[in-house]
Amino acid sequence: MSNSDKPLVGIIMGSSSDWDTMNPAVDMFKEFDIPFECRVMSAHRTPAVVTEFSSTAEERGVEVLIAGAGGAAHLAGVVAAHTVLPVLGVPIESKLNGLDSLLSTVQMPGGIPVGTLAIGSAGAKNAALLAIRIMACSRPELRKKIHAFNAKQAEKVMAAELPV
Amino acid sequence: MSNSDKPLVGIIMGSSSDWDTMNPAVDMFKEFDIPFECRVMSAHRTPAVVTEFSSTAEERGVEVLIAGAGGAAHLAGVVAAHTVLPVLGVPIESKLNGLDSLLSTVQMPGGIPVGTLAIGSAGAKNAALLAIRIMACSRPELRKKIHAFNAKQAEKVMAAELPV
Amino acid sequence: MSNSDKPLVGIIMGSSSDWDTMNPAVDMFKEFDIPFECRVMSAHRTPAVVTEFSSTAEERGVEVLIAGAGGAAHLAGVVAAHTVLPVLGVPIESKLNGLDSLLSTVQMPGGIPVGTLAIGSAGAKNAALLAIRIMACSRPELRKKIHAFNAKQAEKVMAAELPV
Amino acid sequence: MSNSDKPLVGIIMGSSSDWDTMNPAVDMFKEFDIPFECRVMSAHRTPAVVTEFSSTAEERGVEVLIAGAGGAAHLAGVVAAHTVLPVLGVPIESKLNGLDSLLSTVQMPGGIPVGTLAIGSAGAKNAALLAIRIMACSRPELRKKIHAFNAKQAEKVMAAELPV
Amino acid sequence: MSNSDKPLVGIIMGSSSDWDTMNPAVDMFKEFDIPFECRVMSAHRTPAVVTEFSSTAEERGVEVLIAGAGGAAHLAGVVAAHTVLPVLGVPIESKLNGLDSLLSTVQMPGGIPVGTLAIGSAGAKNAALLAIRIMACSRPELRKKIHAFNAKQAEKVMAAELPV
Amino acid sequence: MSNSDKPLVGIIMGSSSDWDTMNPAVDMFKEFDIPFECRVMSAHRTPAVVTEFSSTAEERGVEVLIAGAGGAAHLAGVVAAHTVLPVLGVPIESKLNGLDSLLSTVQMPGGIPVGTLAIGSAGAKNAALLAIRIMACSRPELRKKIHAFNAKQAEKVMAAELPV
Amino acid sequence: MSNSDKPLVGIIMGSSSDWDTMNPAVDMFKEFDIPFECRVMSAHRTPAVVTEFSSTAEERGVEVLIAGAGGAAHLAGVVAAHTVLPVLGVPIESKLNGLDSLLSTVQMPGGIPVGTLAIGSAGAKNAALLAIRIMACSRPELRKKIHAFNAKQAEKVMAAELPV
Amino acid sequence: MSNSDKPLVGIIMGSSSDWDTMNPAVDMFKEFDIPFECRVMSAHRTPAVVTEFSSTAEERGVEVLIAGAGGAAHLAGVVAAHTVLPVLGVPIESKLNGLDSLLSTVQMPGGIPVGTLAIGSAGAKNAALLAIRIMACSRPELRKKIHAFNAKQAEKVMAAELPV
Repeated sequence: MSNSDKPLVGIIMGSSSDWDTMNPAVDMFKEFDIPFECRVMSAHRTPAVVTEFSSTAEERGVEVLIAGAGGAAHLAGVVAAHTVLPVLGVPIESKLNGLDSLLSTVQMPGGIPVGTLAIGSAGAKNAALLAIRIMACSRPELRKKIHAFNAKQAEKVMAAELPV
Repeated sequence: MSNSDKPLVGIIMGSSSDWDTMNPAVDMFKEFDIPFECRVMSAHRTPAVVTEFSSTAEERGVEVLIAGAGGAAHLAGVVAAHTVLPVLGVPIESKLNGLDSLLSTVQMPGGIPVGTLAIGSAGAKNAALLAIRIMACSRPELRKKIHAFNAKQAEKVMAAELPV
Repeated sequence: MSNSDKPLVGIIMGSSSDWDTMNPAVDMFKEFDIPFECRVMSAHRTPAVVTEFSSTAEERGVEVLIAGAGGAAHLAGVVAAHTVLPVLGVPIESKLNGLDSLLSTVQMPGGIPVGTLAIGSAGAKNAALLAIRIMACSRPELRKKIHAFNAKQAEKVMAAELPV
Repeated sequence: MSNSDKPLVGIIMGSSSDWDTMNPAVDMFKEFDIPFECRVMSAHRTPAVVTEFSSTAEERGVEVLIAGAGGAAHLAGVVAAHTVLPVLGVPIESKLNGLDSLLSTVQMPGGIPVGTLAIGSAGAKNAALLAIRIMACSRPELRKKIHAFNAKQAEKVMAAELPV
Repeated sequence: MSNSDKPLVGIIMGSSSDWDTMNPAVDMFKEFDIPFECRVMSAHRTPAVVTEFSSTAEERGVEVLIAGAGGAAHLAGVVAAHTVLPVLGVPIESKLNGLDSLLSTVQMPGGIPVGTLAIGSAGAKNAALLAIRIMACSRPELRKKIHAFNAKQAEKVMAAELPV
Repeated sequence: MSNSDKPLVGIIMGSSSDWDTMNPAVDMFKEFDIPFECRVMSAHRTPAVVTEFSSTAEERGVEVLIAGAGGAAHLAGVVAAHTVLPVLGVPIESKLNGLDSLLSTVQMPGGIPVGTLAIGSAGAKNAALLAIRIMACSRPELRKKIHAFNAKQAEKVMAAELPV
Repeated sequence: MSNSDKPLVGIIMGSSSDWDTMNPAVDMFKEFDIPFECRVMSAHRTPAVVTEFSSTAEERGVEVLIAGAGGAAHLAGVVAAHTVLPVLGVPIESKLNGLDSLLSTVQMPGGIPVGTLAIGSAGAKNAALLAIRIMACSRPELRKKIHAFNAKQAEKVMAAELPV
Repeated sequence: MSNSDKPLVGIIMGSSSDWDTMNPAVDMFKEFDIPFECRVMSAHRTPAVVTEFSSTAEERGVEVLIAGAGGAAHLAGVVAAHTVLPVLGVPIESKLNGLDSLLSTVQMPGGIPVGTLAIGSAGAKNAALLAIRIMACSRPELRKKIHAFNAKQAEKVMAAELPV
């Protein structure tokens, strides 16, 4: 469930039904050629797995953790409670359009931070991009790749044609 | 932090600042003469304590667990993940008036239930009363006390005088 | 409208159109082999039926009541007003995505508790599971079944495969 | 708790703490010289009283019923379920600013109507004014009084001075 | 655009696209055999028509006015400003699920009441039923019909079969 | 209620209690030396006054209209229905923090526009500044003043000292 | 990407996927025969383009700017920060039904105004109509066209037939 | 406006009135002895300053940027558009309790990420702690400090005494 090298990023989600939303995060890491691991685990149904995964991530050499969950989305917060790595949260769409997922992820009490991204797949993509910005702090060549990525996406916007 | 007998109910809250909200739960258990324990512990700042407390509650003879928390209120859900006892959640008021606390508590995924009460001290009082209704399933004399309690509170409503 | 033995749980819903949402509760009771009764009745269109049903549940030997309703969802609250049994509420989805159903069910005044679950079918499933946790307080063999159920659902999460 | 003549309007509220909000309704009936009764009763704590009050209102000669309640505000809906008189609901302010009270009052299912007014004391005043418009359907002299009232309030608006 | 007799009720809506939502109101008046008129007019696009229609309704013998509108739903409030008849508002579904329509209709300032019903077609049906309850204040035979209608809808609820 | 010259802007508000919120708009026009008129009038309590004021604004030489109102804030929309001048709306704070005022002002149907500003006094200030930007389209010297105003407010931001 | 004459209005949107929503604005300018330019640019992906476009609009002779964006919709605000022209904002529908887009557009701080229209295509149409009302301040013949447009749309409302 | 060493973190806020909210971020950096710079600048009133500050941060050796803003909170998003550094956003409380600030900050489109923290001072504290977790990725001694910090805050929770 991960690509070849020792993973720098851990991506987890509460259910395999979250895959469609989280997929764009995986795509980003592939595009930036960053090794990652990607697993399903649930803060509520497999709490011991989450604790184990989170508390050992540092020693496994992971640098950033990304957690996607919906509804009473506790996953990112629970992960953040068990690690000193930066944790990013992706609120998955829900019956309340993801508003519950967003609030459950972002409104963490002072002391244990979760950097929260937008609801849904845009948030998943951005969680990956923020993780890459984070890892680039100590990897100049990665920074160059982000500059190139941004230039390319600017070009795409500029090239858009409207049927006026 | 508990009254004399072996506790039947465990009450926890994420911060000592939640005490004013949760106090009415304690008052109810005192009024119904039910032994309880009451502690501060945080799903995010002391996750191991919460895991320990929750997963041993059954063997300690506790029958119902009540958790109050605000904002990204993960406490009740995390407790429910570690026990098969009934868990009741009280959303504490927050910067968003407790709406975040409510959604974080109630919107649990299928499989791990949290019985959620109203935002704030009315919810705390009702968490106690629901716990008492639960414990009364196997304690006929407790049922009688609830009938009496309800009759008394009905009388209070009936006795209300309006300055018309 | 019930399975064979004397019901331990009463499930009611405001309309037959709520069946699809409430069905997972029924499935759970079947899976745990717990006798239940299941009926349609409305707090607004058949108030006397609801009063009768609720106020006689205790003497009929029912231990937990579950009520699902949408919009101005008064059903669980009205039931709770007529019994000392624990009452669980399931907010059914509505034109406002169930937010109205949720608030109408959960925001009960101090004195009459309704343990509220998530909006929609996840909430229905969890209402059943919470009822089972409640009934298990005095039934050790039922507790064992919940432990087994939880282990099985953890296994399902662990076995999830992502198309990474 | 009522003024002298046989009441044409019944005003009820869930708690004596709702008095400050509902008072403007009473003031309106006094200003229009319409006999009313005004009582505290709770859909949850005194359901039998509400049933009795509502189901006998028609035969007591009452023409309109007004119910104010907050949070999971079931009072107006429960009243409407027990009478064929027009029922008006006033959502009382709550921890969620009355949004829960509003949705619990207004989102009634098809079949049992509650005419809902604004949150808080403006709603209470308007519940009275709507009741008066209703009673005026068969009382031409009352219609004249409303015309006069409206003219007077228009004058007040016109007379407003701003400190520009 | 109306049925044969001199109309007792005026139904208006902001756009012909509101017809599907408002249709159940018309159905109710047909079922209760109450003459009505039904027209499209807009508070914003045809304000003079609304003023004319509202301010002459009393002298035309109309007893109740019903207005359905969506979004910034000003129609019911503007109508209420031009008449002393009781005005009922139906919030039509919108891009915000009708929450904007609801708030725009119900949150009237003290002085000019609009009795507001539920969002969408349930609200339209109930606006008609509330109008009928209002007109029944001075028409005993109409009250009997409402009792019969309520009994019939109770029977329907009682007859519901669940595929348990 | 206006300053000396023939007014270019009309400012209205639904109640004299809205003055504190709307005052910053007046301050802006004084600072930019633009003649304005400022009055209290209500879409619901004085509809004829609003119609008269709005429909004659064009011939009186007014160029922009600003309307502030709260709750079911119909004022700006009703004004826009009676004029072809640009109409700006200021949602006044309310029991729902101005969310109802905002939605009632901004969610106008296609055909009749209201340019809506922020809730409260920031919105009132900005309504004036937008009106000035509008009037500056044909007044180059006014554009210069806006450039100067913007430079001055940028300087204020730059000069801010933090007690770090 | 614009029609023939020197544009008086600049329309921009954050993504080509916003075209369906913004199209009605373009249709209005075509109907009123007003030259416009229409481009895709993003406050986040092409900030320099937005700065250039906004800060040169005045000297290019543009009179009004319209910006449509969704989610964290910063486009209109960023444009308004770089020009003294009136800026109108159209909130595009989003995962939260456009509520985030609306709040991100309208809640500007005092000093930099954005005149905000309704969520979605009704807002786009109205942004154009408000821009036309603005430009008509100094173009009497345009005012006549708006009067004619309003008369025509009133006629359409009047001609609506309901299948009663 | 910064402490002595070359800053590793840039903290900005839209107004000096945001200081009380953002202060806890500064306190954290002082506690962890991390050099920072702290300035007031506005996305709307001083856009060129924000562009300059953001686009030069990388070459100035800053590693993380934190932006706090309220209402239509564009600051963090605009900063993120001009840098490849990780950007963290703090939604400041507003007239809508910070819900607008939160949505304006978090709902960024795919491509430009902002890691968003909780509304208000808890979010400010956590933005600093997340920045520290980020910087600790390449600074093992900083990781140790976070472990120690977490242990200390766990102790504080454990030491809490309730007046039961």
